[in-house]
Amino acid sequence: MKAKVINDAPERTIALVFDAGDEVMSTLQAFAADHDLSASRLTAIGAFQGATLGYFNWERKEYDRIAVDEQVEVLSLVGDIALDGKAPKVHVHVVLGRRDGSTVGGHLLEAQVRPTLEVLLIESPAHLRRVHDANSGLALIRIDA
Amino acid sequence: MKAKVINDAPERTIALVFDAGDEVMSTLQAFAADHDLSASRLTAIGAFQGATLGYFNWERKEYDRIAVDEQVEVLSLVGDIALDGKAPKVHVHVVLGRRDGSTVGGHLLEAQVRPTLEVLLIESPAHLRRVHDANSGLALIRIDA
Amino acid sequence: MKAKVINDAPERTIALVFDAGDEVMSTLQAFAADHDLSASRLTAIGAFQGATLGYFNWERKEYDRIAVDEQVEVLSLVGDIALDGKAPKVHVHVVLGRRDGSTVGGHLLEAQVRPTLEVLLIESPAHLRRVHDANSGLALIRIDA
Repeated sequence: MKAKVINDAPERTIALVFDAGDEVMSTLQAFAADHDLSASRLTAIGAFQGATLGYFNWERKEYDRIAVDEQVEVLSLVGDIALDGKAPKVHVHVVLGRRDGSTVGGHLLEAQVRPTLEVLLIESPAHLRRVHDANSGLALIRIDA
Repeated sequence: MKAKVINDAPERTIALVFDAGDEVMSTLQAFAADHDLSASRLTAIGAFQGATLGYFNWERKEYDRIAVDEQVEVLSLVGDIALDGKAPKVHVHVVLGRRDGSTVGGHLLEAQVRPTLEVLLIESPAHLRRVHDANSGLALIRIDA
Repeated sequence: MKAKVINDAPERTIALVFDAGDEVMSTLQAFAADHDLSASRLTAIGAFQGATLGYFNWERKEYDRIAVDEQVEVLSLVGDIALDGKAPKVHVHVVLGRRDGSTVGGHLLEAQVRPTLEVLLIESPAHLRRVHDANSGLALIRIDA
């Protein structure tokens, strides 16, 4: 484990409120690019009309896809933003709640908001960087010693 | 999606520690009103003796109620506070864990703490406002362009 | 419920990036001790090769152990750090996601990271203290009135 202080200067807190029909990941990704976010974290609650989740299959080194084709509560959404090359990359995991209170969750690939998603994003002034990891095939955040 | 920076000034972090028997939503709501919270976020862990959760039924435009009548771990509690009219309104979603590790979650309507709930609340100096949304029947956070 | 403002001075945000094979709780505990953390909160996402979770059994006043012997996504990890005597104590709850999107969660006793865990930890300048609670047998955060 390696650690890095990412706010020698003050942080900015930004509320992002999504409308019904907005796709979450492409909207977050565009916001991160437009605002040059290089080290951020976010949490959210709200609801989705549907979503596609991922489970990282360690044998195949790829995400298996899990379709959620129903109205679900967004019980928790936790994410971070770091640079992958020169561009920010948004990474989000969710737990979703069905009508009977049962839950389904995974790495968020895409989701359609309905009626709202309330995101609180905290932008730190430092940089976090993703680097290709040969062992997993993923771009992982790397902090140099 | 619309965005608003909510901390041109520094934020305040407040630890709220609940005792056994405290009801969560009425206590949070009273704290928010007493301290005039107009734009806050919170996370928590702990345990409940029981809870009532909600699932927003899109057809009926009402919350279906889900009773949780057992001791459960509070695995995640994520929430925000915004103004609804002149008064702060607390909005919380939870994931709860049962004896066998299975989970149940939803919009938090009420819950009885046992033995503790450890909340970290961050108060931002700006205002977020809820406005009635005709399409869902809910008061949603609205950020003006 | 009692409340305490824990940041009269600025807070520090620290990114902790875990490597494959790292054990989460002992690593976090060592980091907290090395850096004298006395009032912190953390969130994380990533994946585990396996974990041992706890459910606090109210009758026995002990944690039942729940073994998770498979690769899982860390859907949410929420925690806090407070002093227990003179030493910091890390308290973490998780929700984990299986291959089919089903979830399992609890109080985190131990976990093996694979391939990464991305933690954002916020250090507040104040102190939070745990005190033995006779009713539960646990050391709970106590805020003096």
